[in-house]
Amino acid sequence: MRATIMYGAGDVRVENVPDPVIKAPTDAVVRVVRAAICGSDLHPYRSMPATDTGRAMGHEFLGIVEDIGTEVTGFKRGDLVLSPFTYADNTCYWCNQGLHTSCPNGGRYGFAGVDGGQGEAVRVPQASGTLVKLPARADSALLDSLMTLTDVFCTGHHAAATAHVAPGTRVAVVGDGAVGLCAVLAAKRLGAEQVILMGRHTDRTDLGSDFGATNVILTTGEEGAAEVRKLTDGRGADAVLECVGSMQTLTTSFAAVRDGGVISRVGVPSYTDGPIGMDMIMRNITLTGGVDPARHYIDEILPDVLDGTIEPGRVFDLTLDLDAVPDGYRAMADREALKVLITP
Amino acid sequence: MRATIMYGAGDVRVENVPDPVIKAPTDAVVRVVRAAICGSDLHPYRSMPATDTGRAMGHEFLGIVEDIGTEVTGFKRGDLVLSPFTYADNTCYWCNQGLHTSCPNGGRYGFAGVDGGQGEAVRVPQASGTLVKLPARADSALLDSLMTLTDVFCTGHHAAATAHVAPGTRVAVVGDGAVGLCAVLAAKRLGAEQVILMGRHTDRTDLGSDFGATNVILTTGEEGAAEVRKLTDGRGADAVLECVGSMQTLTTSFAAVRDGGVISRVGVPSYTDGPIGMDMIMRNITLTGGVDPARHYIDEILPDVLDGTIEPGRVFDLTLDLDAVPDGYRAMADREALKVLITP
Repeated sequence: MRATIMYGAGDVRVENVPDPVIKAPTDAVVRVVRAAICGSDLHPYRSMPATDTGRAMGHEFLGIVEDIGTEVTGFKRGDLVLSPFTYADNTCYWCNQGLHTSCPNGGRYGFAGVDGGQGEAVRVPQASGTLVKLPARADSALLDSLMTLTDVFCTGHHAAATAHVAPGTRVAVVGDGAVGLCAVLAAKRLGAEQVILMGRHTDRTDLGSDFGATNVILTTGEEGAAEVRKLTDGRGADAVLECVGSMQTLTTSFAAVRDGGVISRVGVPSYTDGPIGMDMIMRNITLTGGVDPARHYIDEILPDVLDGTIEPGRVFDLTLDLDAVPDGYRAMADREALKVLITP
Repeated sequence: MRATIMYGAGDVRVENVPDPVIKAPTDAVVRVVRAAICGSDLHPYRSMPATDTGRAMGHEFLGIVEDIGTEVTGFKRGDLVLSPFTYADNTCYWCNQGLHTSCPNGGRYGFAGVDGGQGEAVRVPQASGTLVKLPARADSALLDSLMTLTDVFCTGHHAAATAHVAPGTRVAVVGDGAVGLCAVLAAKRLGAEQVILMGRHTDRTDLGSDFGATNVILTTGEEGAAEVRKLTDGRGADAVLECVGSMQTLTTSFAAVRDGGVISRVGVPSYTDGPIGMDMIMRNITLTGGVDPARHYIDEILPDVLDGTIEPGRVFDLTLDLDAVPDGYRAMADREALKVLITP
């Protein structure tokens, strides 16, 4: 089959690789119908040391079950399914805690001999616990929005959920990437009274407004945080959803949150240490969030996608076929595209 | 009157100072019946630069209302009252959020012309919002435990409350100082299933066991954290209550908490930056806590002290009169005393 392999920073190729086959009785093989490029894929795209062996890329996909192992239950060949961006058994202590990302039988696509999602097919480990059957057809107009449940919308939702966004909450979202825009939509869906989007690009923040942002701030840093305070009676936001991961956006988040408020981080942090000393203590600020256990949220969110209540698929602004994936990486890295959808 | 003034590290004196008088119509003057030395008083005792003017010390006290301003309601001369360790109006947005430590009309004892608590009397600003009337007599055997509601027990409770300790929670408490021991008692009171106390001194951890610790660990650092994991089915504690404030105890807390768990800090941090990078994100760890808004908790906890359900006053192991306060600082700094009670 054809699949996406990264050989180093800026070096993404679509190549012929062996077709996936069932290796364990808990495996399934899924023929990919839609895949996507994630903002987190840009980290190795910018910094991965050159390698001869390469790394299979992609962790967002949905498709048709093509084969199942003898122990897989709940699915049959021909089912349309999606996978959250990590696989997990969905039966252990951690999965029962809603923390599928810590499942000892779980893992990440593209590692340890598991295929990436940006290819024609994927061997899915722990298929019974991982895959979610979609009550839709493979040509459904909902596929774009359903695709966002693999990662990007659930990641925005994780930011809002761990920050306890609820009716009445005043929220600031830092970052107008696809995750930030999904965090706006998620906060709105959870009933936030106010959703202030801090971004840099009006074409992106316009979509944020469509998603429910009540205010848009196009200035960054302390100046932007001062705008947030001005919009919240001088107090700061109850919840700041930090969807970028830089030290600058973290500092902005501390300046934009109110005393006693919550900062929830879902961006990949580019720092190892951060400002958690006396100021955070005196202001009683909570720092939460983390890598999104998407599987935990999908069942709850799926109905709202199926009935059109939310349309997170609007974050996809460029659709490419598999051979054009390297162009997709380039477009996202150069900020020409917000998020790239792939149709193998 | 006589009051405690600190002139620099190691230089604590009890001196004659002007008697407090009503300055604002919202003030009260309280004749001190019990005061205490706080672990946080040891920070200036160890590091305060020498000064000629000195700083009034103490923020934990209870006593008899001696005078009230014209706008003070709810109290009359002769009432036995306690004060939380910060004053606040108890009517503003922040106080209504339970965050009295962020009250714009609030402040700290010993600063901005306000008396410290380690003296014969105190002018209490915002008396109506700050003071709590005690349904007890000034010679009650409950005074020691009531005293802990001014700060130390409520601070332990704040650690447990912000970590959402509830029936079934498996808790680790880092630190066997008075706050740590109160955190044990608070966690037990909130129904924790398991309370693991990490300390260094068996005379203190023995009191921790009386307070409800189910396990005691006398090793520190990674070795101690490994013991916590062993005692929690290899997972780590749901909630770690960090009651010291050093980088070592913070590192221990990250090693002792389970994925998806909460670290709540109530110690004064001796660091400005801490390890909040990729590991915290991948493990979905929440960092919470902060300076304790004691006034928010007192009404809820008071009945349990009055009926003897909890006896947090047992943390006081040395009682001194006012002139001996310098000896009290020395005893606590040298770890000869766990916590010093003062009877002016």
